[in-house]
Amino acid sequence: MISNKNILIAQGGGPTNVINMSLVSIIKEEKKLKSLVMGSLNGVNGIINNRFRNLNKISDNDLKLISQTPGAALGSTRDKPDSKYCLEIFKILKKKKISKFYYIGGNDSSDSLRIISEHSKKIGYDLQCIHIPKTIDNDLVSNDHTPGFGSAAKYVAQLFSGINYDVKSLPGVYIGVVMGRHAGFLTASSALLKKRDEDGPHLIYIPEVAFSISKFLDKIKKIYNKYGKCVVAVSEGIQDENNKLISQKIIKSSEYDAHGNVQLSGTGSLGDFLSKQIKLKLKLPRVRADTLGYPQRCFLGSTSEVDQKEAYKIGVFATKFSNKNNNSFSAGILERKSFTKIYKAQFFANSLNDVAGKTKVMKSDFYNKKLSNISKEFLNYALPLIGKDIIKTKSII
Amino acid sequence: MISNKNILIAQGGGPTNVINMSLVSIIKEEKKLKSLVMGSLNGVNGIINNRFRNLNKISDNDLKLISQTPGAALGSTRDKPDSKYCLEIFKILKKKKISKFYYIGGNDSSDSLRIISEHSKKIGYDLQCIHIPKTIDNDLVSNDHTPGFGSAAKYVAQLFSGINYDVKSLPGVYIGVVMGRHAGFLTASSALLKKRDEDGPHLIYIPEVAFSISKFLDKIKKIYNKYGKCVVAVSEGIQDENNKLISQKIIKSSEYDAHGNVQLSGTGSLGDFLSKQIKLKLKLPRVRADTLGYPQRCFLGSTSEVDQKEAYKIGVFATKFSNKNNNSFSAGILERKSFTKIYKAQFFANSLNDVAGKTKVMKSDFYNKKLSNISKEFLNYALPLIGKDIIKTKSII
Repeated sequence: MISNKNILIAQGGGPTNVINMSLVSIIKEEKKLKSLVMGSLNGVNGIINNRFRNLNKISDNDLKLISQTPGAALGSTRDKPDSKYCLEIFKILKKKKISKFYYIGGNDSSDSLRIISEHSKKIGYDLQCIHIPKTIDNDLVSNDHTPGFGSAAKYVAQLFSGINYDVKSLPGVYIGVVMGRHAGFLTASSALLKKRDEDGPHLIYIPEVAFSISKFLDKIKKIYNKYGKCVVAVSEGIQDENNKLISQKIIKSSEYDAHGNVQLSGTGSLGDFLSKQIKLKLKLPRVRADTLGYPQRCFLGSTSEVDQKEAYKIGVFATKFSNKNNNSFSAGILERKSFTKIYKAQFFANSLNDVAGKTKVMKSDFYNKKLSNISKEFLNYALPLIGKDIIKTKSII
Repeated sequence: MISNKNILIAQGGGPTNVINMSLVSIIKEEKKLKSLVMGSLNGVNGIINNRFRNLNKISDNDLKLISQTPGAALGSTRDKPDSKYCLEIFKILKKKKISKFYYIGGNDSSDSLRIISEHSKKIGYDLQCIHIPKTIDNDLVSNDHTPGFGSAAKYVAQLFSGINYDVKSLPGVYIGVVMGRHAGFLTASSALLKKRDEDGPHLIYIPEVAFSISKFLDKIKKIYNKYGKCVVAVSEGIQDENNKLISQKIIKSSEYDAHGNVQLSGTGSLGDFLSKQIKLKLKLPRVRADTLGYPQRCFLGSTSEVDQKEAYKIGVFATKFSNKNNNSFSAGILERKSFTKIYKAQFFANSLNDVAGKTKVMKSDFYNKKLSNISKEFLNYALPLIGKDIIKTKSII
């Protein structure tokens, strides 16, 4: 079925290592349907500022290069449309006769798309809105996991595996602060390549479980006494028992984005606060804190081949599904019933309302509260997603 | 020539991705000479605490695994021996009849070895002291470069290459704080995979050139106005015109190691200070600072194949040279006269005194002060060291 439609693609939110895989798969599939494929620069912001590109014109070779590149090739945005913003959007969409809009993004972008979709119904403009998930945070509801997570998880797992050897060499306490505003999936991934009990990370702190500084210190002391070292993975989003962010209690950051998210990354203050507490109260030597920051979502060479393929396939699925059905939807990855080492993603369509702006957190049986560490269940869940292509130093002897 | 000697190997200072390559090559070569090969744990500290391992017993397969592993397999130390410490050392060395001591480490470890070597002469104990260089800082005098640097440089280059795409997606100012106490080699390596002028890093700040916050802000403003974004690589060791560390001016860290080095890594304060200045004075949106921290010296999957081979070969050279000559020495990599894309390391012996405790900094023609960026000369110098095996996302389309 040839569609001949005018379609629009855009990317929103924090980019990932594989967000361009989805972009390229949609372009390629829509070209097969003889669509006029446009892209707006910097997400919805590019619509109201009339910054469009004709994506049909990109050569196959350039599409290939784009697919291999981290970051959002069309640029991204944190804009959240209100009614006035929507009026502007539809002024342009009408002019360009756009009838299908793919928005590749996370929770916030799906919420932007929901707002746009509702506005289209209100004004009687026929626009099929399709959300393509991506987020390294892995916190989209009704999805087994999200494209982008596997590659970020691979980076974090590889990083902690190296840190384990570094801290073994010069023993002390090491804290790595990991991205993840509300969900601990990425922080939990720090343990995916851990081999022995004595290896780090010895402790993992996620936003889902109330953080107590005194219990944190007690556990570090115990681990240090046992192994002479302690490696800790801490989510940037850890909260106290009243759901107040620890990072907000210690800094007075006034930077919020349009979706109401406070800036957590790009500052070392949480790690510095925690290491200062350990130095002061436990008097341990060599306490170091690194905030892993933005490389988590864009490091060259840590793409998971599984993640990459899924990011491509979800675009193919969404294009085919949208050509058979006219409704708006959010492309999804079907949730597993049980977790085994062998797993293959299955794609399906979620209702946009079910996903938009909602946040999924870790299942309670993914985490062992008593040990402050992940469970075997989480290992089985996450290991297939980082792929088997873990880069190690080759042997030359 | 079979030596049949009792020899000792140890590792000191901050570990690298390839420090175990040198360890393994020495073990293998000394085994050929029928030596009894011992290792002390945690450098010189393991000598005085009588913590030794028989390294002849390690299987070939385990040696292979060790060679591929980041970190110091024998453990490391920051201890600097004084006369009392030396007395303890020689008590043990005599008992174990050790006549050759290989110490794999950087400036500080070579200085420890110099002290031990001088003490041996004073007391008339025949000990051949051999320094095997390693340091990601690349700041050893009389050496073209040091094993460990190439792999760290590759990690930093790959990281900034990814960051470039991330900041392109969500424009703003990004600061990455890079390791390097006195020398800017590693910070300068942030630009090794840069392709176009518009790509980051747009600005690079090294310890060798006096840092002025007002000029720094001016340049960021200019770049931001030109490209709508600005990526900056800043060395943790940047200093003002009076050679005072910027990081020391802003924090009151009281942690010094035995060699008199103040703690610079493992805290985000320098990056946070700089980003605060940009936010306050330039009022630019999305200012982020990451402190790259310890992954720079241990990230799995960023080993340079060139670095790896050199770290192995320098051990082979040192063993062979030491078997022909009885003097103490520091194994070295001969300095190049000119810099071309094709380069192969040549090994030679430095006198221990010439290297020990001294610090090499960047040649002035490696850096363009006006642009606050590296020169083509540096590119030609450093590119061969990171190797050609840069991991990119493979194409699946």
